[in-house]
This record gives sequence, C-alpha cells and structure tokens, in this order.
Amino acid sequence: MKAFYQDFQLGILGGGQLGRMLIQSCVNFDVFTAVLDPAADAACRHLASRFTQGSLTDFDTVYRFGKTVDQLTIEIENVNVEALFQLEREGLLVTPQPRVIEIIQDKRRQKQFYRDQGIPTADFVLVDGLADIARHTGFLPAFNKLGKGGYDGGGVRRLDTAADVGRGFDKPGLLEKAIDFDREISVIAARSASGEVAIFPPVECVFDPRYHLVDYLLSPSSAPATVLAKAEAVARQVVERFALVGLLAVEMFVTRDGEVLVNEVAPRPHNSGHQTLCANQVSQYEQHLRAILDLPLGDTALKSPSAMVNLLGAEGCSGDVYYEGLGAALAIPGVNLVLYGKKQTRPQRKMGHVTILDTDLSRLAAKVEQVKRTIRVASRTAG
Amino acid sequence: MKAFYQDFQLGILGGGQLGRMLIQSCVNFDVFTAVLDPAADAACRHLASRFTQGSLTDFDTVYRFGKTVDQLTIEIENVNVEALFQLEREGLLVTPQPRVIEIIQDKRRQKQFYRDQGIPTADFVLVDGLADIARHTGFLPAFNKLGKGGYDGGGVRRLDTAADVGRGFDKPGLLEKAIDFDREISVIAARSASGEVAIFPPVECVFDPRYHLVDYLLSPSSAPATVLAKAEAVARQVVERFALVGLLAVEMFVTRDGEVLVNEVAPRPHNSGHQTLCANQVSQYEQHLRAILDLPLGDTALKSPSAMVNLLGAEGCSGDVYYEGLGAALAIPGVNLVLYGKKQTRPQRKMGHVTILDTDLSRLAAKVEQVKRTIRVASRTAG
Repeated sequence: MKAFYQDFQLGILGGGQLGRMLIQSCVNFDVFTAVLDPAADAACRHLASRFTQGSLTDFDTVYRFGKTVDQLTIEIENVNVEALFQLEREGLLVTPQPRVIEIIQDKRRQKQFYRDQGIPTADFVLVDGLADIARHTGFLPAFNKLGKGGYDGGGVRRLDTAADVGRGFDKPGLLEKAIDFDREISVIAARSASGEVAIFPPVECVFDPRYHLVDYLLSPSSAPATVLAKAEAVARQVVERFALVGLLAVEMFVTRDGEVLVNEVAPRPHNSGHQTLCANQVSQYEQHLRAILDLPLGDTALKSPSAMVNLLGAEGCSGDVYYEGLGAALAIPGVNLVLYGKKQTRPQRKMGHVTILDTDLSRLAAKVEQVKRTIRVASRTAG
Repeated sequence: MKAFYQDFQLGILGGGQLGRMLIQSCVNFDVFTAVLDPAADAACRHLASRFTQGSLTDFDTVYRFGKTVDQLTIEIENVNVEALFQLEREGLLVTPQPRVIEIIQDKRRQKQFYRDQGIPTADFVLVDGLADIARHTGFLPAFNKLGKGGYDGGGVRRLDTAADVGRGFDKPGLLEKAIDFDREISVIAARSASGEVAIFPPVECVFDPRYHLVDYLLSPSSAPATVLAKAEAVARQVVERFALVGLLAVEMFVTRDGEVLVNEVAPRPHNSGHQTLCANQVSQYEQHLRAILDLPLGDTALKSPSAMVNLLGAEGCSGDVYYEGLGAALAIPGVNLVLYGKKQTRPQRKMGHVTILDTDLSRLAAKVEQVKRTIRVASRTAG
C-alpha cells in the first residue's frame, strides 16, 4: 500500500471545511497531505502537512501543484479540469477522475448523462440563452440552471410563466421541470478503484415550514423503506455508471408518488454527510480516503440516529468570529460540535456544524431547536 | 468562554499520541495548541498549531514555554512540577493542578494519599532502600515500587521471599502487597473546574493466558454490575478527593472476593480510553478539553461495545516504519484504525491502535485475534 509509505503525498484541491475533515481522517491513517486553496486563511491552512496558496481554476497553478504530489483528490469540483487531464496523461492518479469531474461541472452534460444512462431525473431541455428559453415556454414552470459556473446556489432561477422568461440566464443552461416533491434526500455512495461500492443510509433535509429553509439534516431519512431502497439503488447506479473512484453525494427528490429523481451530484465529501463522523461506523471522510487509496470500504451502518445543524454566520455580523452559547449547547446530551477554524464570519457563511445523537426522534427535533436557539455565530467586535 | 477567542492558546506538555488525539479534539473546537516535547519527530509535531522542541523536565524550558500560553495542560505527568507551581503563582491556569501532579509523580505520596483519604488500595509500607526492605521481609510477597522516576513499567520489581531482597531498589520507594486479583479494570473520570464529575464506563484488560500480557482492552468490562458500580464510585471518590481539574484514569484491581483496589492513576488521557473516540458519546480527549476549559462535560455512555488493540513495533524491526496488513485489517467490519504518525519504529513501541466495534462479544474477541494476526508494524528496510 503505497499510501502507507512515509514519502507518499496526497494532494487535495480545496482547503475548506470538507478538506479539513478529510485531513483529520488522513491524520488517523498517517497520510501526508498537501492542500491548494486560494484563501490565505483557508480552514485547512494549519492542519495540512503542506499548504499552497493559489487558484484552483488556473491551469498552471493546478498543474504545478499536481506535479508535487503522488495522488490528487478534490474537496470542491470547481477546479481546472484541463490541468487534471494533463496530469492524468502524465501518469498522476487523479481521483475522482477528471472525466467525471468534467461531466459534473457542467449541469447540461450531467443531466444528459442521466438521460443517456437511464438514471431517473426530472425532465429537462437544454437551452442556449434567453431566446431559446422563450421558445420553450410550454415547458414552464421550470428551473433555469446555468450549465457552468453556477456554484453556491447562484446558478438557479425559477421561471413560472412566459412572463418570467426575462429573468432567465442568457447563457447556455437548461430548463428543468419544477417537481412537486414530497421531500429531499441525499445518499452518499463510495466506489473504490477495485470497484467495491458502499452506500450510506439516506439522509433527509428537514425544512422549516415557516421559512422554506433547510432546518436540519435527519439521519436516517423517515421516508418509507421502499423509497429508501429505491434511493440506495439509484445512488449505486449513478456511482457505477460514472465508474467513479471516490465519494459521490447524490441529492434526490422524492415525488409525491414515491418516485426518486436525481437532482445533483457532488464527487466528494458533502455537507449532507457530516453526521457520519459520529453517527456511522465509518465517516464519509475516511470512506473517501479508503476509496481513493483502494482500501476496503468501511461499514456505513448507523451507530445512532442523528440530526445535523449547520452553524451559519449570523445576519449583521462580519469580521473576527465569536461563538455565543457554545458552552450552553455542549450541556445538551448528545451534542457533537465541529468548528471549521475560519477566522472571519459573514452572514450565512458555514462556520461549523453540530451533530446531535438521540434515539428518540421527537427529542432529536427538540434538541435541534434548542441548539439553534442557543448558538449564535457572532463577530467579536459586535460582542 | 475565553477559549473560543482567536488569540487563546492552550499549551500542552508532551507531544506523543495522547497529545495528538487531544489536539484532534482541539481542532474540532478551533482551539489553538502549542506543544512542548523533547523529540524533534514527536507525534504532535505537524498537528500542533505551534511546536517547541525542548525538555519537559527542565525548569527553565517548561517555565519559558508556559509564559507563552494562556492555559497549560499535560499529556504526560513526568514534567517539571516546580515550573508549574511557579507559573501558577504568576497567574497561569495549569490544569490538572501542579499539587495533583506532584502527588501522582511520587508513588509514595500517591499511596499515602489513598490511605489518608480512605480510598481502597493494596496494603503497603514505605521503604528507603534495600536495608529498609530487609527489615520488612514479613511483608513479602510484594511489589517494590520506586517512589519517583519509574516510568514505562521500569520502576516495579516483584519480591517473593527474603532471598529476593537484593533485587529490590536501593532508593526511596514502597512495598505493596502482591494482590491475588481476579481482573484489572480502568475507569476514566473527569472533573471540571466547576466541580462537575462524569465517569466513563469501566474497561477491562483482557490478558492472554499464554503470555500473561495484556491482549486487548474490552469496553465495557464484563465484571458483575456490583463490581462496576463500586469501581465507578471509587473513581468518583479519587477525582473528588484530588479536586482535580481534567481527566483522571484510575487503574484498579478487582480481588477474587469482588473488592476494588486502586493501583495507579494518571491525570490525563490514557491508553485505556482510546476506544472512546468511536465507541462512546464523548471521547476522553474531548472530555479532557471540556473539563479544563470548564465546559459542561459530555455524555460518557457507550455507542457500542468495543475492543482496543495497541499496534506495537514488531520484534526485530527498527527504523522507518512500514505497516503490513493494514488493507486486510480494514476489510474487517467495525475496525477503526488510528496511527500515531511516528516515523521510527522499534520493538514494543506504541505506533497506533485499532478499535473494533461489535455488539457480539465472542465475535469481538475473534476479530481481535484476526487484527493481531493481520497487522504487523515492520520497518521499511526489513520489508
């Protein structure tokens, strides 16, 4: 196992919280990590064995970084894929594979892939821009999604009627039928280079009915067993059709008649898998590492039901972070706190998360409310 | 909570595996760590926010290091306690407290403390050296323990009869009655500055009957409930009588008639608590951190029964470490691997550990055998 030799270096593109938690698994396996990230104060900066500040989308920067490591992985998919192809051609092991990242980076190609492979997904048409959208008003209501570059929720707009066409993107994208879904679930699949596949139990996004915002992630999902089995089968289908090496988070809609439709995927550890750190036999981070190092995959079984709450920067607070209420929150039995080491907060920035373990689901929901009321991600100057 | 301000620095005396796992908890709480250790290649070197190479037993080195941090803790008790007293007098928060470390460093004072406080422990007499031992041959069979400096098992010799006296230590120490014990258990207690106490479920050292060596640690102990309750009560008594702030590992003998006797204690995370990382609601490392930062203590309840196997350097292997069989071991369901990042192996050196989770105790024992047969801590040159 080459990874267990001392001179092995795993490169990670991206140095945010997902990379940070991945590095924590690398520490347990004594795997040397080298991280590339544009931010001088990246969450991984002080945890990586070696940190390089630089652009993830610049060919030369990614290529040069890749030449210094023995294997390359990602914690964000918005990276220069041409550099990854070049590195792969020159013999570097890049996992997940550039061809998979390239498809996933472009929502048009991603959707077309699902259609070609017979993977259930909401109906769609490809559009080149506003004029094209205007020709497809019969397809509305729909979501107009940008093909490329629509990260962090910025590349999606809902168009209900012909009157909304002007609010669409005048760039290559797609129109995706608005689905009247019952719930949103996420399934994390892993596939190793040897082709072994393991699927984490589906988790569910529980929405706050007052604000239509994700309130917390519930593991396992409360959907009927038939739906969960279908979701796991679809996740397996997607990861196998991609023949991906690594982790694939598959976000899905469950329709009112119990059908499962793939929404989007991410070829890396994912926000919907944080709870695996304490609630599952293996964490998604260690699983990613096992998959890319071609080790046997871990047991995905639950240790306990759990709820995961993101700690987001409070409205009106920017600057040096200060966490209010952590002590009080830690007094709640079953609370597991993970802060991401980001020094600067701003409204809605993901600064950490709390996973709550409890076998009683109503008590779990009550504890979620209690945690959300108790912790506030403030800025020091405001405190 | 001062610890959650960005300029707070927690100093840790000692940079071995216990410090390394403590730092992993500090990472989750975003607590800045500064480590002092004499070894240039200490396990913590690359994980600590700041690493200082230096002696732990030299007054000036410890004192100067202490002046650079906001709070000081330990991962090894063989440190210069006079420097800790001086730092405390100058206002530094030192946890555990120097007065507790000072008692525990000297086995004579430690035993006398148990006697004075009515804590059950094996009968003993203090001896000044060989001549004094010769005056107490009626007390044999007994263990002659050095008062100070007997670390890593080097300070204990068994004396069975008067003929053995010459094999004793000619230094201040004690004679401790040899106990005909049924089993050895360990209980980890935590006490916060506010006086909150929490006790981890007792774990048991399972010995290999062929070699009389510790084979693995079983959690929870299989001792009768009455014995376990007694052990937890004794651990609580010890940590409260010390009024210690932090973690206290209490090693105990269980006699054949079900009595519990304190053997030794360690005021820090302990080898017998590694399994808490994946098998308990809170880990001993996070619990230590919660205790010394005066946060509410975590829930010590089990998530699962477990067995913990130390990975020791193989006989005949020294130099650059190479782990044989890790891949095969990771294929066993429930195996959790933690390597300590030590670059050099030598026979019997603690290089990592494996915790196995399984609800079935006979399957757990079988998996222990399997792990021990599978993993070999070799050296690269030999491989």
